[in-house]
Amino acid sequence: MGESIRIGIAGYGNLGRGVEAAVAKNRDMQLVGVFTRRNPAELATLHAETSVNTMDDLAAHEDRIDVLILCGGSKEDLPQQGPVMAARFNTVDSFDTHARIPEYFETVDAPARAARKTALISAGWDPGMFSINRVYGEALLPDGDTYTFWGRGLSQGHSDAIRRVPGVAAGVQYTLPSEAAIEQVRNGSRPQLETRQKHTRECFVVLADGADPASVREAIVTMPHYFDQYDTEVHFITADELARDHSAMPHGGMTIRSGNTSDDHAQVIEYGLTLESNPEFTASVLVAYARAVHRLNQQGQFGAVTVFDVPPGLLSPKSAAQLRAELL
Amino acid sequence: MGESIRIGIAGYGNLGRGVEAAVAKNRDMQLVGVFTRRNPAELATLHAETSVNTMDDLAAHEDRIDVLILCGGSKEDLPQQGPVMAARFNTVDSFDTHARIPEYFETVDAPARAARKTALISAGWDPGMFSINRVYGEALLPDGDTYTFWGRGLSQGHSDAIRRVPGVAAGVQYTLPSEAAIEQVRNGSRPQLETRQKHTRECFVVLADGADPASVREAIVTMPHYFDQYDTEVHFITADELARDHSAMPHGGMTIRSGNTSDDHAQVIEYGLTLESNPEFTASVLVAYARAVHRLNQQGQFGAVTVFDVPPGLLSPKSAAQLRAELL
Repeated sequence: MGESIRIGIAGYGNLGRGVEAAVAKNRDMQLVGVFTRRNPAELATLHAETSVNTMDDLAAHEDRIDVLILCGGSKEDLPQQGPVMAARFNTVDSFDTHARIPEYFETVDAPARAARKTALISAGWDPGMFSINRVYGEALLPDGDTYTFWGRGLSQGHSDAIRRVPGVAAGVQYTLPSEAAIEQVRNGSRPQLETRQKHTRECFVVLADGADPASVREAIVTMPHYFDQYDTEVHFITADELARDHSAMPHGGMTIRSGNTSDDHAQVIEYGLTLESNPEFTASVLVAYARAVHRLNQQGQFGAVTVFDVPPGLLSPKSAAQLRAELL
Repeated sequence: MGESIRIGIAGYGNLGRGVEAAVAKNRDMQLVGVFTRRNPAELATLHAETSVNTMDDLAAHEDRIDVLILCGGSKEDLPQQGPVMAARFNTVDSFDTHARIPEYFETVDAPARAARKTALISAGWDPGMFSINRVYGEALLPDGDTYTFWGRGLSQGHSDAIRRVPGVAAGVQYTLPSEAAIEQVRNGSRPQLETRQKHTRECFVVLADGADPASVREAIVTMPHYFDQYDTEVHFITADELARDHSAMPHGGMTIRSGNTSDDHAQVIEYGLTLESNPEFTASVLVAYARAVHRLNQQGQFGAVTVFDVPPGLLSPKSAAQLRAELL
């Protein structure tokens, strides 16, 4: 193994904390430090020895970080940070607003190219590993259909939505895939599935003092886009129950390609994730891609790239010869 | 879409026939022809319009084939053909003798490099798609274990083995994964599994006239390496039943990575295939990689490569921008 890869973390929420944990699991990497907009003195990191700095300190670290992992959010942070950081560092991020990926790619590509940096955008599991499997699925079975199911998992966006309903003190929302729909897809029948047939939604809600359960339930299940196209169950629980039973961030799902190689033969490819911690797994994906980005940059591949551009072997600390001998 | 990719098929057994079917499913490809050691006049192809030629005719086609797909066997054909063809064509093959892959890689790499050709070896599903998922799994969850299960599927090697037992007129063998073992792995417990716990074997045998069932059964279940380390069931059937119920070539399996991103959180990644036709699916993989090989060669990447060296996006007929917009 060569020199170790020096990683910086920009932003320290659940994802940044996950990256700190993931770097420790990779022996060819070292963590230079966390860079935050908060007061470093008030940040409690996972490992006591982790160096905590302000974002302004990044300027002094430009030559000491091989890859900077951007752990901010897709709505506010990354559209601003991505292009700025790609002009100064090799970067990896998890930009996940699917509809705006082409536009975001362009804003990162130009500064990265100009600075001879490599910026991998939209890594994680969806976008990320699920996307890779959608591409493989289409390419291997061109006469076919792709199905993506999410869950069982905690949805941050839908949890935020129910917390905005008047009368709701707190709450979480889980997305559940329909087992019946999955079975139909797995058996190769290539069904046409409506939104309502693929997923259901389950809410656990703590009512505000004096709120009426029936009207809160009605407000949730009829909420446009978020819930009205789904079958939704609402359960009322206490604040204690919420804290005890719903603090974890599980998620997962599967992407299935069902296709025919001939009239006689159906073929089914399935890729599934069962995650006890969504942010920790996403972080692990970012860290593996940081290794690839470091190598792509060394090979002279500059500009913005995505998971579609990265050969699988570049994610591994093992050499190409070792991979052929051990894993092919 | 640019010009179509011109494909040649060297060898016409089940795999070559599968490639003929797969090329027809890809609109950016055209089949130049099949090249065979048999008498072309006696070859019945899938499509009447397919051109059938002798292997000697390949010389006249060197400028008319973008990628030659080698459909011979790993034991006799490819060790001889692979290096010879890689000096004349871009090639894709399904060399699947895992232990000899490093040596085979070297014998193909030198002539391909010298001729500025690109030769992708060992594509298919194992080696191939399963290998890719073993690499992704290790890289994403370095603190983890990888499990591969095969089946339910027809095993050619084990079917050949039972047909060599005295008293056996004909027969087939299916490999079955243990559902109990799969459940243990799926729940993240990272079990240590013995060979006998992971798979069982099921044989359907037609007895030769006058053969003794008990001694045939005993000879099969005690056969070293092939059956003695497994729990094996032997069913005796008629030649008619064998022809009616056991002519298909289903296969599949799964590779599972189970790992921890922290002491508190287990994560499970699963990639599974359910194949009604093993050779047709393998052929579809070879054809998708033929597209990638054509592009790698145009990019100037010469020599032997494997699936580990190919970015997922190169398998797709879609452009990088289209993939980002539609599938990321």
